[in-house]
Amino acid sequence: MVNALELHLVGIGTGNPEHLTLAAIRTLDAADLILLPRKGEDKAELLDLRRDICARLLNGHARIVEFDLPVRAADGDYLAAVADWHDAIATEWRRQIDAHLPGGAGKVALLVWGDPSLYDSSLRIAARLEGIGGTLRVQVVPGITAVQALTAAHCIPLNDLAAPVLITTGRRLREGGWPAGADAVVVMLDSGGAFQAVEPDGVRIWWGAYLGMPQQTLLSGALGEVAADILRTRAKLRQAHGWIMDVYLMKRGQGV
Amino acid sequence: MVNALELHLVGIGTGNPEHLTLAAIRTLDAADLILLPRKGEDKAELLDLRRDICARLLNGHARIVEFDLPVRAADGDYLAAVADWHDAIATEWRRQIDAHLPGGAGKVALLVWGDPSLYDSSLRIAARLEGIGGTLRVQVVPGITAVQALTAAHCIPLNDLAAPVLITTGRRLREGGWPAGADAVVVMLDSGGAFQAVEPDGVRIWWGAYLGMPQQTLLSGALGEVAADILRTRAKLRQAHGWIMDVYLMKRGQGV
Repeated sequence: MVNALELHLVGIGTGNPEHLTLAAIRTLDAADLILLPRKGEDKAELLDLRRDICARLLNGHARIVEFDLPVRAADGDYLAAVADWHDAIATEWRRQIDAHLPGGAGKVALLVWGDPSLYDSSLRIAARLEGIGGTLRVQVVPGITAVQALTAAHCIPLNDLAAPVLITTGRRLREGGWPAGADAVVVMLDSGGAFQAVEPDGVRIWWGAYLGMPQQTLLSGALGEVAADILRTRAKLRQAHGWIMDVYLMKRGQGV
Repeated sequence: MVNALELHLVGIGTGNPEHLTLAAIRTLDAADLILLPRKGEDKAELLDLRRDICARLLNGHARIVEFDLPVRAADGDYLAAVADWHDAIATEWRRQIDAHLPGGAGKVALLVWGDPSLYDSSLRIAARLEGIGGTLRVQVVPGITAVQALTAAHCIPLNDLAAPVLITTGRRLREGGWPAGADAVVVMLDSGGAFQAVEPDGVRIWWGAYLGMPQQTLLSGALGEVAADILRTRAKLRQAHGWIMDVYLMKRGQGV
């Protein structure tokens, strides 16, 4: 037992239970409380995956508690809405910890999609938790990111020899086209088709959805030739599953 | 048994055996032959770590063979020297496979530092192997990169909220200063101190060496204040261990 509150943010990879590292399993096994967020009907499959990981890989020591994740305001300023949303999530974490860890001391673990460092807000929410509930020790267990799941599935290197790589968002790509700084660009958090903002000549794309999961789908080729196919496939898959998570790498110039 | 030759490039993380994923362990366990490169006296610790992983985590099915890694020419054109070096390594892989996998069929595995997609040449060498030895099925098992080990150790996010991140090399930073495209920059493969090419005002750095290993060392702070300390610490550690692997993240502007 610990006297203080420890929060363990555990990267679990992108849905394949075999993505878990030994450190992730050991950390989850040592937790007193594991919080699993419910994100609504549409994303029930993602909760099922987390439940499945806990049931298949853990020793049953931890108390597993599900809670409804607050919903982000869809209108207004994006960054302000995200800040409010993180406040609400921190408050909910605190409420669950107070309810299920008597005395507020012990080890709490969260299963974080991918890696807690990359386009994930658990660390920012944890910082808020500290503000509303006293001292807290935060530990991060790294996990396989969607970027690595993508390149592994396509069996390709991320970077060209000694060359840089930029990781960015669909929103940025849509606003600014091909970003400065690199001829290899990874796009995450794309609501769909941001690659249409890029002049396709001489650009190759490697796209993947549901990486690591049974429904994993891959497409690749010259951007001009496969863009329409990716858009069509993405729409169909999203319809069929009710949700989609995808990521892609584009390269131009020498590496193509 | 398989009839063809399968080559499994298995990401093992940065030296902590607990970085291995369940998929990595299963793949190594299923291999007929594991090739472990010897990189000379200086880097004997790295070979020891790989040996240790095989001894501690595997079931002993695979034949483990060590071989001397060819040495890269230090002079002449960098990219040409690397290309020649990769040719030589592919020839050596082929020789080891022919010697230890009678008939040239079966599963060969290589333990790749970090992840096979990021600043690693195993995929490029595997492509050459195909050229000199017939058909080959290559599979990549993703692993924890030094980037994730760095951010986990420092307990920080890689990107600022919805902002991009550039991953580049020490050589590029030294030649061009702060790169276009992102206010968060990860620098890998730095022979030491490339951050001195950056105007330090308003820049923060998070540095880590031997990430995930017992000798892990972390430093962070305003670049202007900690740069000299990092250079001193790096030189001392390199002297003490005979080798060093380090990586760092720098941020400027809002995220600082």
